[in-house]
Amino acid sequence: MKNNFQKYHEKINEELKKIPLKQSPKELYDPIKYMLKMRSKRVRPILAILAYKLTNQDWKKIVKSCIALELFHNFTLIHDDIMDKANLRRGNKTIHEKWNKNIGILSGDLLMIFANDLLSKIPENLLPTILKRFNEIAKKVCEGQQYDMNYQKKILINEKKYIEMIRLKTATLLGFSLELGGHLSNMDNYNIKKLYEIGELFGIGFQLSDDYLDVYGGEIFGKKIGGDIIENKKTYLSIKAYEIGSDKDKKNLEFWKVNSNSPDEKIKKITEIFNLLNIKELTEKKINQFFNNAFKKLDDITLDLSKKYELKKYLKLLLDRKI
Amino acid sequence: MKNNFQKYHEKINEELKKIPLKQSPKELYDPIKYMLKMRSKRVRPILAILAYKLTNQDWKKIVKSCIALELFHNFTLIHDDIMDKANLRRGNKTIHEKWNKNIGILSGDLLMIFANDLLSKIPENLLPTILKRFNEIAKKVCEGQQYDMNYQKKILINEKKYIEMIRLKTATLLGFSLELGGHLSNMDNYNIKKLYEIGELFGIGFQLSDDYLDVYGGEIFGKKIGGDIIENKKTYLSIKAYEIGSDKDKKNLEFWKVNSNSPDEKIKKITEIFNLLNIKELTEKKINQFFNNAFKKLDDITLDLSKKYELKKYLKLLLDRKI
Repeated sequence: MKNNFQKYHEKINEELKKIPLKQSPKELYDPIKYMLKMRSKRVRPILAILAYKLTNQDWKKIVKSCIALELFHNFTLIHDDIMDKANLRRGNKTIHEKWNKNIGILSGDLLMIFANDLLSKIPENLLPTILKRFNEIAKKVCEGQQYDMNYQKKILINEKKYIEMIRLKTATLLGFSLELGGHLSNMDNYNIKKLYEIGELFGIGFQLSDDYLDVYGGEIFGKKIGGDIIENKKTYLSIKAYEIGSDKDKKNLEFWKVNSNSPDEKIKKITEIFNLLNIKELTEKKINQFFNNAFKKLDDITLDLSKKYELKKYLKLLLDRKI
Repeated sequence: MKNNFQKYHEKINEELKKIPLKQSPKELYDPIKYMLKMRSKRVRPILAILAYKLTNQDWKKIVKSCIALELFHNFTLIHDDIMDKANLRRGNKTIHEKWNKNIGILSGDLLMIFANDLLSKIPENLLPTILKRFNEIAKKVCEGQQYDMNYQKKILINEKKYIEMIRLKTATLLGFSLELGGHLSNMDNYNIKKLYEIGELFGIGFQLSDDYLDVYGGEIFGKKIGGDIIENKKTYLSIKAYEIGSDKDKKNLEFWKVNSNSPDEKIKKITEIFNLLNIKELTEKKINQFFNNAFKKLDDITLDLSKKYELKKYLKLLLDRKI
């Protein structure tokens, strides 16, 4: 039997299929169809549904609005992939790789317009507040992406700036996803604010754990690891290593960044430095801090514990990467 | 003394300066500031003001909403310039030239978000209709840009398709500019529809006359001409020449596209073929058709002639390129 999360997932995909994507111009609409068909957890609309379900059961009627989150998210992915020169997305060729950059730019733009269009169909009385917040968040997402690009070029970034970048680029939209569900169910401002904060804290934790799993995920999930190390990507781990490492550690890090004989050696040597500096434990501590704070805020929501069970369960599954 | 159009222009620039553009990240906000400082006629917000003024005098209070049109238009310019590899815009370096492509993509995205944000601040009761229409138009603008890119690569485009491309890419937003003014002044649907149609027809005429003036503007304005010819750009004139030219004419066109000894020779030879085929007269006829239809629709607006005087005057000034 299907569990609820699968039901939401299916309904979201069903609604995504209903978006009036034309046949022509092919070069504009095909990339959007391709993008929306990719395997995806649909985390953002599911979060909105779960927040809505804290107080309402008729969740099906809001799915149409919630998929605006998914469309906006996909718009950012298409444009980010161009900027980051990424070739693959969820195992598929990125749009600018499969087509070209111009098509990536324009189909991304169009996807953002579709997101706005869907969101503007919510009940009139909620529109001003939701749109104001959505556009605030959208601006932050752009700012986060710009900081990300800026930081990739710098040698030293401090932890605070890195986390702020993550917050802007990723966590704000997760916060807004929960917030949207709150608005749509006419929750009070106190609880809506808490919902946003839960999503934001969880989002930062989740993104940091992405960094963590790239290096230490192999131990847990048996996944291929070290992609970020190979690409010399700035991550919480590398930033922390530069922050607390001695001059010798930093020299070693710089050395292995460019002088390894093989990707495997590079991963091995840099991970050794991380281990030496206790980066694993420091990162775990940081991640747990964000996750714990997120769950503490969930306790603050003024509703019976039983009402919050489903949202809590989903967040736990996400956290444990079981979904 | 300032005329009204100068007053609108000033007020629009004043409101543009009030947009909360941050200091940081510089790479994201500086390009937007740069773009909005460029010399510009601000046609779209002025059209919205003039449509509003058909029935209301307190135009100053709607300027804030009308500049959403200018922001959206500038967003399309930034992204189009990347796609079209244009180096100059209004005599200034384009954003991707002055900075880089990534910055062009992201600052364009942000500008679109600012447009949405401003538009979402209009009175609640008008929001659903206006946003629905705005997003419809925004989609068409993207479609038009895609057709434009597609057609630049093709040898033969028929007139109908070319005009439809222009309509989507340029004329729909001009139509919506007038329409927005109508909505904001609570005009009835009949007149709002007419306003849209006036803008759309005028927009097509205006764009065709851009094509025309590139070849024949020198005679009228003493401007440097032939830019489109040098770049082998598809224009109404070139399309028409391929449509009605004999096989020999087409061969000649193809020959001079690639075999001229100088830009001046290229312009001269291709203009000669245009002249031979009466392209000048055919284009003038087509342009006048659109402009005449636009002014006929203006007569349909159910208001005293005196009320329509200012809008009519502005359109005439635009048409004669005196503004």
